[in-house]
Parts: sequence; C-alpha cells; structure tokens
Amino acid sequence: MKKRFIYLDNASVTKVDSRVLRAMNIYHTKYYSVPTVEYGHSFGLKSRKALEQAREAIAESINANKDEIIFTSGQTESNNLAIKGFVAMNNTARVITTKIEHESILNVCKDYGNVAYLDVDREGFIKFNSLKRLQEEGAILSIQHANHEIGTVQNIKRIGRFCRKAGITFHVDATQTFMKLDIDVERMNIDLLTISPHLIHGPRGIGALYIRKGVKIKAILSGGYNEFGIRPGLENIPAIVGFRKAVEIFDKKDVSRMFKLRDRLMKNLLEIDNTKLNGPLGKDRLCNNVNISFRYVEGESMLLHLDLRGIIVTTGSSCFSTALKPSHVILGIGGRHEDAHSSVRFSLSKYNDVEDIDYTIKNVNEVVSELRKISM
Amino acid sequence: MKKRFIYLDNASVTKVDSRVLRAMNIYHTKYYSVPTVEYGHSFGLKSRKALEQAREAIAESINANKDEIIFTSGQTESNNLAIKGFVAMNNTARVITTKIEHESILNVCKDYGNVAYLDVDREGFIKFNSLKRLQEEGAILSIQHANHEIGTVQNIKRIGRFCRKAGITFHVDATQTFMKLDIDVERMNIDLLTISPHLIHGPRGIGALYIRKGVKIKAILSGGYNEFGIRPGLENIPAIVGFRKAVEIFDKKDVSRMFKLRDRLMKNLLEIDNTKLNGPLGKDRLCNNVNISFRYVEGESMLLHLDLRGIIVTTGSSCFSTALKPSHVILGIGGRHEDAHSSVRFSLSKYNDVEDIDYTIKNVNEVVSELRKISM
Repeated sequence: MKKRFIYLDNASVTKVDSRVLRAMNIYHTKYYSVPTVEYGHSFGLKSRKALEQAREAIAESINANKDEIIFTSGQTESNNLAIKGFVAMNNTARVITTKIEHESILNVCKDYGNVAYLDVDREGFIKFNSLKRLQEEGAILSIQHANHEIGTVQNIKRIGRFCRKAGITFHVDATQTFMKLDIDVERMNIDLLTISPHLIHGPRGIGALYIRKGVKIKAILSGGYNEFGIRPGLENIPAIVGFRKAVEIFDKKDVSRMFKLRDRLMKNLLEIDNTKLNGPLGKDRLCNNVNISFRYVEGESMLLHLDLRGIIVTTGSSCFSTALKPSHVILGIGGRHEDAHSSVRFSLSKYNDVEDIDYTIKNVNEVVSELRKISM
Repeated sequence: MKKRFIYLDNASVTKVDSRVLRAMNIYHTKYYSVPTVEYGHSFGLKSRKALEQAREAIAESINANKDEIIFTSGQTESNNLAIKGFVAMNNTARVITTKIEHESILNVCKDYGNVAYLDVDREGFIKFNSLKRLQEEGAILSIQHANHEIGTVQNIKRIGRFCRKAGITFHVDATQTFMKLDIDVERMNIDLLTISPHLIHGPRGIGALYIRKGVKIKAILSGGYNEFGIRPGLENIPAIVGFRKAVEIFDKKDVSRMFKLRDRLMKNLLEIDNTKLNGPLGKDRLCNNVNISFRYVEGESMLLHLDLRGIIVTTGSSCFSTALKPSHVILGIGGRHEDAHSSVRFSLSKYNDVEDIDYTIKNVNEVVSELRKISM
C-alpha cells in the first residue's frame, strides 16, 4: 500500500468545496458592494439579494423563518450570543448545561456563575432525570446536538418537548450535526440554534444563530443596525454566499456513505486488543465520528506516528489537545485519565473513501503494536 | 462618452485583489487545517505558520510586535473589544471621544454611559483645548485616524503624545487610513489600534486589534485559548492570509495617484455653484475621500441618478444612509440639516482612473442641473 494523505480531522474544519469557493469568489470580485436597501445604489442591491436569499435558504434548512437567522462570525460567537445575550435580558436566569460541551459554552458558563450541570451517562447521553431535578422556569438549557469529541447525539426532540413544557429556553449547538442530521426547530422545540458551514465544506469565519421569534436576545457587539439590530458590522457577503452554497450542495447520500465508512473503521479498530470505544454505537453516534482509547498508548504518540504515515487525526478536542490536558469530555463521561490520554478521534468527510479507511486501519494496527512494544 | 461602471464607494468596502483571492483560496482547499502547535499534526503546522507569518507582517506594517496583534472579525468587533475590553478591566474609566466617530464607537459609548465628547471644528479636526479640558488620568480616548465620511485626518502624533503624558489610554480606529497613511504605534504613542483589510482590497470578515503590551483588555467572547486568550474561536486562516497579502501588495504609488484623482474631482465639482466641501482640503484629508454638499439637491436623488449613469456613490455614511437620517458627521461639524441631506461621498480606489473621474465630473454636473431645475 502506497503512502497516502488522509485527513481525518473533519470535526475541526473541512476542506472547502470548489463549488462553494466559486460562489464566494464572485462576491469578492464582481458583486463586492455592501448590501444596500431602498435608498441605496443598485450595485448594493445585488449584495442585499444574495444576503436575503442565503438567509432564506439557511432558514429553510432548519424549518425556520428567514427573520430568525442572525449571521455571526462562527460557532464561538453564536454560542456566546445565545447565552450572554439571553442572560443579559434576564440576569437571574440559570444556565443549565453539561460538563462535556464545547469550550465556548463551558467558558461562558464559568464566567457567568449561575450554572447547573446535568449528569451524562458513560456514553455521553444526558440523564433525563437530572434535567427533571434541575429544571427551573425561566432558565436556559444549552447542549450540543452531537458531542464534538465522541459524537454522542442527544435526543433533542424529547429534551425540547420537556423544555417547552417547563418554561425553559432551549439552545442547541448543532455545529457538528448541521445538515448531517435533520434539524427542525419547530418539531424539536428549539429556541436558539448555533449552526456553521465550516464542517460541511463551507467557509470559516461565518456562522449563524437561529433566534425563535419572541425570544429576547441582547446584542454582544454595539454598532450599526445590521442583522435586525442583533449583530452589527459589515455583512460578510462572500462567506454568507458560501454558507448558502454549502447547504445547497449538501448530499444526504454522503451521510450514508460516512456511516458505512465509520462503522468499518470502528469495527476493525475495536478488534485491536485493549481498545475502548468512547461514545455510543449505532445511529445515536454522529455519522463521521470514531473515538477510541488505545490502552498503553499515548494519544499524542499515536497522532505523531500516524502523521508520519500521512494520516491526520486528533487526540482530545483540537483545542485542548494543544495544551496536553486530558480531554474534559472523556473525563466527563466517567472515563479514566488513561482513557483520556490514550484517546484518538478520527473524523470523516465526504472526501474519504474505503481505501482511506483500510489504509488507516492497517496503519493504526502497526503503530499501536510498535508503541506498545516500547511501553510494555 | 460611453456609459461606464464606476465604483466610488471604496470607503465602505473594496473589490478584492485577484492576488489576495489566490492566496486565500490555497488555504480554503489545500492547507485547510486548523492551526496546530507543538503536539499537533504536521498538516496544521502549515496553517500555524501562515497565521504567525501574517501576524508578523501585519505587526511590522504598524511597527508593532507580533504578539500585540489580535485577529477579530473586523472593525466593529475590534472597536468593541478595545473599549468594552478596557472598561471591563476598569469600570470607572471615562471614555473620551467625539460625536463624529463610526457608529460602532458611538454606540459602545452610548451603552456605557460614562463618556465625554471632544469638540471638533468645522472641518472635523479635534479642538485640542477640549482634550486638555476633558482629560482625566486612567481614561481611554477613542478617535478615528481619518473620518469615514469626510476624510478628516487627525493629528494622531500630537494627540498621542498628550495622552501618554496625561495617563490616558489611546485607541485609534485606523480602518480608513490603514496602509494609506503611515502608522507607527511607537512614534504615535498609540495603545490600541483597529485595522482591517477590507478597504485595501483584502477580504471582509477579518480585522485586528493592536494591543500594546501591558494594556489590559478583557475578552468579549468566551471560549478557547486562541489569540493569546483575547479572542476565542476557530482562526479564519484564509481571511488572515488574505489580510497579509493585501498588506504586502499595497503600493504607495496608488496613494499619490488617488491624491491626484481626488483633487481633480474635488476641484471640478466645487466649480459647480452652491456647493460646499465637507471636511478639509490638502494633505490632512484622506487620499481617496471627496464629500460635497450640493445645495438644493437631495443626496438620495443624486445617488439614484448617478446610479442610473453607472456611478456608485453614497450619501451620509453607508449605514446611516439606508435609514434616510441626516449624517451625524455633517451635523457634528456644525453643518446644517440641508448640508447633511445634500451631501454625497465619492470614495476612490486604486482601480479608478482619470477617465472615471472625468466621466463622474461630467455626469454630476448634468445631474445637479437637472435636479435643480426640478427643485428650484
């Protein structure tokens, strides 16, 4: 088997699709004006039209209305806007979350203080009883649709129904699942939803927050009256156009393909001795996520040895891994420090094929053997 | 003279240079990883290198150190981060500014409350005596390097020297002047500086805040530990690479060319009866800004009629003009409501040539005559 280049860090960021790039480039060099309205010049109306069409297409993809979509600079800003914007309107509101969320949520909560943490089980699913116990009318619940490290997909519909009845505002960070799983803000009773195109081959530096009509959110940034007064600043039209394009070209068939590749990778890697899957099996695991702890092997050593063989993976979350801290997610589901330190995340995209997976399986086997020879 | 398309709204946003676009596109489709550090995969080191090289080149362009540059999503966020980040560290600090700033500064100030406004003269220059009167140790002064509507260039060096002596932190919004005028944060005693590439043919959705070492700024957004802990979120590498490229290809010769074209446009338009230049003449006016009030003509009518002839201009600032409110800048320099309503801003770029200018002069003359025939 020849050396290949296999990118399996698609839960961090994905390659931009060339169709997305072409769509964006037109708005960098041809229709490059600021969006204008009624009294503005006609050149700016082209940008305005692109902006509003994108807003409409993106709203439709989650069954929202177009005036419920606010463009932001990405996941971190959307998550900040959801929580800080909500508690700024209601500064005694409790925030309910879990300890396995994305660091943008965890750190917003840490700064705020009035927070309750739901229990999660050993696969990362929220224990429904803890929600019943911690519920409080007027609170805001913030959870990921699917966990960024271990791919656990929460039962959003059940939790949403509960929140609606309990008078809890429901924020979902769908960064990992957007377009890969069906999201219907009506059917799921979602009040606030973070989405971004950067994991579906769209651009970085753009994201959105869905804000249900009637939910009061205070802007974080002050300035102009863009985005219904919720998010000032020059609209990033090229990126917004790219966002729309990424949504439009998304093909559900890629999800089925990723599921198959994921299961092939997972099944074969778990045949290695002393391995442990982090997160669940089956449909309640994100289609492109594999996370395995290889006992007696450091995740960082795995990462570097696979890198030498052309395979790009991460250990822990991409942000925490740089600090060599054990993954807060693996610890959060009751994993041991050694599980956290030996965990490797393989995240797939539509650009991966079965040869990539088989090459990865073969090389992980070899690297694990080599490293265990040294450590044992 | 044949109908042309002449874009003169370059103080709002500029066309992206094809060299910038090519540089960015590589990081969308080839080196698309998140930036990693020591323990990360080698693919991410390419992004890290691009990030740090950009930081260095941009720092160098304003005579700063690279660890003093924080990437943000643009001007509005940088301005918010400067002021909100400063007063969050010191919540009794007074903010000193003027009434002719960009709306992101004006609205941050409005929300904060503890603000003093410096006087400006009829050309938009800060009255130095009012700074002496309003100074307060521990305060923060925030002004634009050049005004976005009327192009008035403040004497940053003199104001900076004063602030340093008075113990005032000095924030300059250099969005309009970045690269067009020399900026040296050391020589000018600037503590915080907002810059962005979107007016020098770089991308939108990216900007930076220079923060002098030792100046304490609290992050607005919570999340990961990116950008020295000041700005969390996935680094927008393609845009950052575009930012760097826009800086590197900037050619000072274009500034001299724009000065000449600006003066040709200004001189000829001021020969029309009952016109009034808003802002100063000469070197203390931004190289690409012309702002003229055409008495007895509505700015909006001018805009629409010029638009029909292929000439893109604005009236008031681009954001306020959509609301048909009179320009706060023209009112702020003591202009009458009719001056504000009849003002038109022509903002040039390196892509304009003398034919554009002559075509504009001819057409403005015709449109003004036509419209005055109706109104008088």
